[in-house]
Amino acid sequence: MKNVSIDTITQAVLSYYSDSTDPRFMFVLKALIEHLHAFAKETELTHEEWIRGLQFLYDAGQISTPERNEFVLASDVTGLSSLIDMLGSQHEGTSSSVLGPFHIAGAPEQAYGADLKRDNAGATVLVTGRVSDLEGRALNGAVIEMWQTADNGLYSNQDEAQPDYNLRLTTSVGEDGRYAFTTVRPAPYKVPDDGPVGEMLKATGRNAWRPSHLHFIVTAPGKRALVTEVFPSDDPYIDRDAVFGVREDLIMEYQQKTDLSDLPPGLEVGEDVTLPWYRVDFDFVLVDD
Amino acid sequence: MKNVSIDTITQAVLSYYSDSTDPRFMFVLKALIEHLHAFAKETELTHEEWIRGLQFLYDAGQISTPERNEFVLASDVTGLSSLIDMLGSQHEGTSSSVLGPFHIAGAPEQAYGADLKRDNAGATVLVTGRVSDLEGRALNGAVIEMWQTADNGLYSNQDEAQPDYNLRLTTSVGEDGRYAFTTVRPAPYKVPDDGPVGEMLKATGRNAWRPSHLHFIVTAPGKRALVTEVFPSDDPYIDRDAVFGVREDLIMEYQQKTDLSDLPPGLEVGEDVTLPWYRVDFDFVLVDD
Repeated sequence: MKNVSIDTITQAVLSYYSDSTDPRFMFVLKALIEHLHAFAKETELTHEEWIRGLQFLYDAGQISTPERNEFVLASDVTGLSSLIDMLGSQHEGTSSSVLGPFHIAGAPEQAYGADLKRDNAGATVLVTGRVSDLEGRALNGAVIEMWQTADNGLYSNQDEAQPDYNLRLTTSVGEDGRYAFTTVRPAPYKVPDDGPVGEMLKATGRNAWRPSHLHFIVTAPGKRALVTEVFPSDDPYIDRDAVFGVREDLIMEYQQKTDLSDLPPGLEVGEDVTLPWYRVDFDFVLVDD
Repeated sequence: MKNVSIDTITQAVLSYYSDSTDPRFMFVLKALIEHLHAFAKETELTHEEWIRGLQFLYDAGQISTPERNEFVLASDVTGLSSLIDMLGSQHEGTSSSVLGPFHIAGAPEQAYGADLKRDNAGATVLVTGRVSDLEGRALNGAVIEMWQTADNGLYSNQDEAQPDYNLRLTTSVGEDGRYAFTTVRPAPYKVPDDGPVGEMLKATGRNAWRPSHLHFIVTAPGKRALVTEVFPSDDPYIDRDAVFGVREDLIMEYQQKTDLSDLPPGLEVGEDVTLPWYRVDFDFVLVDD
């Protein structure tokens, strides 16, 4: 392949790969190389722009640690993470959404109606709902994990002032498929914007904010695990999530309640409840694995 | 933009960028995001494959240092570097080729006919040629930088056994545009294959070898700087350079000479010459800046 030219180089690169390469890997590599070359040709990418792109990757590598992965963040803010998520979950159940970097396993198991609010500042929110299959049948034994920010926009593993597993929950549903817990309203927060991704956001006038959300992982025997987020309809960033995690069916309403008599039977909202309190109903529908 | 879906997310991402973003930067970003999304959609890239790609970037970041940039290497072996190089040098002069990571500035200036071989092992090679413009006029005052591997396939800055600036040259041409120096035949070598790029090459049956070559930077007043490489026609890797640097007009012949009487007038090939020696002629044609 001496005659490499602008017109032949893509084929030249592809011709180098062994026929024994894993076919799926080769299919993905071929598409990647074709798109990479087409991108360079269409834009007539200059040497200086190419250097700038390489510098972005180098800087992203230098700032990344096991706890802070700038490449994941770059994927998030360019919508790639959400696109991958949607491609992998085209079904009729509840939409999935991004896992994010703040999940930690092992949140203590708590009973129906658990109070996560305790000493946390913020408005009291009662979250209730049901876990079912596509036919509406309760999924007895489904397990829900939930994690969220405190009122200051930080997760417990970002904030030494919060106790371990603060505002994190593991809970199982019974025969009726229902869950309930009391918590505080989570807060919007910015994705890390002190690295090369943040610089790119600033250079292009983009905001780094995510609307507030509750993270959920819902699992049940024989069902596909659901990783998702649930967003309040009135969040100021609901229409411009920096990482494109919002889906229409993941938006819930905070129903304002001025009277404790509105509590469902058998539930309480903690001893220190201030009025008004808020109620959120959100049902999860899981599909077969 | 609540209704982000597989079909709308690309537009959603693009809608986030400010209208005041630098137009050329926005043009490049738009193409990049469109190709990235199209790549994911066409391949229906799975979550596991996405994770694998992110891991590749993370690993590349971790192994990279100012001296060893794995992202440049990834660009090289996917042909992107050569494509950028060709896109930026579409003219009638001598083809350019990749700079590579082994150039160091400041090689001592030496006169016409300089002997770089000295104590180096390997076959003696006399390299001669002429620097001209497109009309064939000698470019008086043109400056040539040359660097190459020793017989062991290592550059002086990779090999403590070599003196500083070993097999590196800066030389100026006179009114006749001619240059000449004596050196040793460079050796093929592998690009660094102990990192994630090397793993990818192995997993896909690709070789990591580059054909042997002489690196050149040629500059002249009012002319576009030429960064290039010159390759021997009989190198075993001439048809499968791992980084796609070979161009038809950059291939030269090692002319075997069995007699010192074949030396051009006024030139010598060093005191320790062994027979046969080799002669290489390569002319450089620079275009206007």
